[in-house]
Amino acid sequence: MASAALQPLAVSIGDPAGVGPELICAAWEQRRAAKLSPFLVIGSISVLAGAAQARGLSVPLLAVDAPDQAGDCFADVLPVLDIGGLDYTPGEPTPAGAELALQSLEIATGIVRGGGAAALVTAPVAKARLAEVGFSHPGQTEYVAERCGVASKNAVMMLAGPSLRVVPITVHAALAAVPGMLTVELIQTRTGIAAAALERDFGLVQPRIAVAGLNPHAGEGGAFGREEIEIIAPAVEALRGEGFAVTGPLPADGMFHAEARARYDLAVCMYHDQALIPLKALDFDEGVNVTLGLPIVRTSPDHGTAFALAGTGQARANATVAALRMAGECAARRAAA
Amino acid sequence: MASAALQPLAVSIGDPAGVGPELICAAWEQRRAAKLSPFLVIGSISVLAGAAQARGLSVPLLAVDAPDQAGDCFADVLPVLDIGGLDYTPGEPTPAGAELALQSLEIATGIVRGGGAAALVTAPVAKARLAEVGFSHPGQTEYVAERCGVASKNAVMMLAGPSLRVVPITVHAALAAVPGMLTVELIQTRTGIAAAALERDFGLVQPRIAVAGLNPHAGEGGAFGREEIEIIAPAVEALRGEGFAVTGPLPADGMFHAEARARYDLAVCMYHDQALIPLKALDFDEGVNVTLGLPIVRTSPDHGTAFALAGTGQARANATVAALRMAGECAARRAAA
Repeated sequence: MASAALQPLAVSIGDPAGVGPELICAAWEQRRAAKLSPFLVIGSISVLAGAAQARGLSVPLLAVDAPDQAGDCFADVLPVLDIGGLDYTPGEPTPAGAELALQSLEIATGIVRGGGAAALVTAPVAKARLAEVGFSHPGQTEYVAERCGVASKNAVMMLAGPSLRVVPITVHAALAAVPGMLTVELIQTRTGIAAAALERDFGLVQPRIAVAGLNPHAGEGGAFGREEIEIIAPAVEALRGEGFAVTGPLPADGMFHAEARARYDLAVCMYHDQALIPLKALDFDEGVNVTLGLPIVRTSPDHGTAFALAGTGQARANATVAALRMAGECAARRAAA
Repeated sequence: MASAALQPLAVSIGDPAGVGPELICAAWEQRRAAKLSPFLVIGSISVLAGAAQARGLSVPLLAVDAPDQAGDCFADVLPVLDIGGLDYTPGEPTPAGAELALQSLEIATGIVRGGGAAALVTAPVAKARLAEVGFSHPGQTEYVAERCGVASKNAVMMLAGPSLRVVPITVHAALAAVPGMLTVELIQTRTGIAAAALERDFGLVQPRIAVAGLNPHAGEGGAFGREEIEIIAPAVEALRGEGFAVTGPLPADGMFHAEARARYDLAVCMYHDQALIPLKALDFDEGVNVTLGLPIVRTSPDHGTAFALAGTGQARANATVAALRMAGECAARRAAA
């Protein structure tokens, strides 16, 4: 999929005390089998060396000065833009580690925005620890959106696994607040952004989109809530009017078995758990978080720092590998367009 | 599991125009392979004959006068307590069909309450159609609870499949109403009833119960809602104080992958879709609806009348077979206790 001329991917190192560094090393080891595009890490050679050693991996690391040096050497070494070392103990986060994570994110985003890398892949950070060193965004997604000049509401989170793609319309909100947050415009805007991205970045012609109801049985004709009638159905109609292949609102509990999933390319959900419960039930450890609607390609493994697992060798690299592969594929499609 | 002395199970026929009659016939055909306890149908020989024929099944039917005649003949014929015939077209419900469904439910419940049958298995009905012929209950579960002298709130719905058992604390309510319905007492009462039933009817010693949070990330320490702190955690504590093996509140999206499921016997969920999304994603077509907390055993396949599939031969009998087997197993445990 990735053409020879494609720029490398830029990978931020995430919190060094989390599982990010070791999973990046583990993914590099799988570069051939997993057909990964060349990537470079923005971070710390000493941290990556320690993480590889703790996991029992032998990963040759090479300091590079610029992203364009990464492509040629990637087959033999893991290229690193070294921005400094620090005392490193897996599972023990420190303020200096949070500083490194933040700098890595900032530099990696800048490189991708400047055209020096084909896509951004972010390793997991601890949001509370980033906040302690001055990071004022709710998460990496919002930061990247701002750096791209895109309003947060137009940066759409999609979770994608081997079985399922989902977009939650609302994300980190109390369940009681969700009904009040839903509007025709919000559903229409986010679904439209997702549909366009599935065409451009994922190569799906006229992607089929299934929109979930909010209430049990999608409200059963208004018996259990009127959001389907007043908000979701009008949004679906509006999207159809725009030419998108959208169905719904559908009863959410009937949307996620194998036969139902075969009928759509993307499930649009009204809230976090409606999207994440089926994604993780079916594709645990393999989910990729993709930010749609940005001028750059950005993916991330859909898991956290998992400090308790760091250095134990138990964390699985599936999601990191999948995030790297998906970033390469999306970037190649944009480059070929 | 079923002992020779066990009474037969009583099966209500459900709406005759739905898939109930044909799936009962299909289940009878699997009686040996599926190790089903003997059962009799309360309904109509002419409907069952028509349903079997439409599905291409050859099922010998025998009219019996009383349940105790069912056990001996069950190996060779499907015993039926015939309460009348009617014009029968699969997929075309009629008021006369709704009357038959209602009478079947009433008689079957009475037989089980009177000790003439070991358990009640109900085939699907169309609630709106039952209401048109004078049925004043929201569903069969509430009707059966009332006939048993059990308050609706103490009749607890559990959905059980090969991968997962779930109890939704609230069921047919608009999502916006759910947070206001949750109380410590409701969660404590329903979970306690479920735990006791898993011991008595399912043979699980000290069943392990995982309680889901309401909000994303189980509220993340109050950042996304306080129901976990104010309602769910106190209920879990109270249940532990009663001696139950309960954990939670847990982030719901992390509860349903295979590794997580191995840690518990029952997931207690706060609302319909939180329970039904993972159940149907994992065990579609095999879910059994069990009413816990009743003096009788009652199960049902977890699907509706599926009028559009009736007579086409496409409806799968898995859930009906599973409901019959589970009813037999639970009844045998009660009989042996």
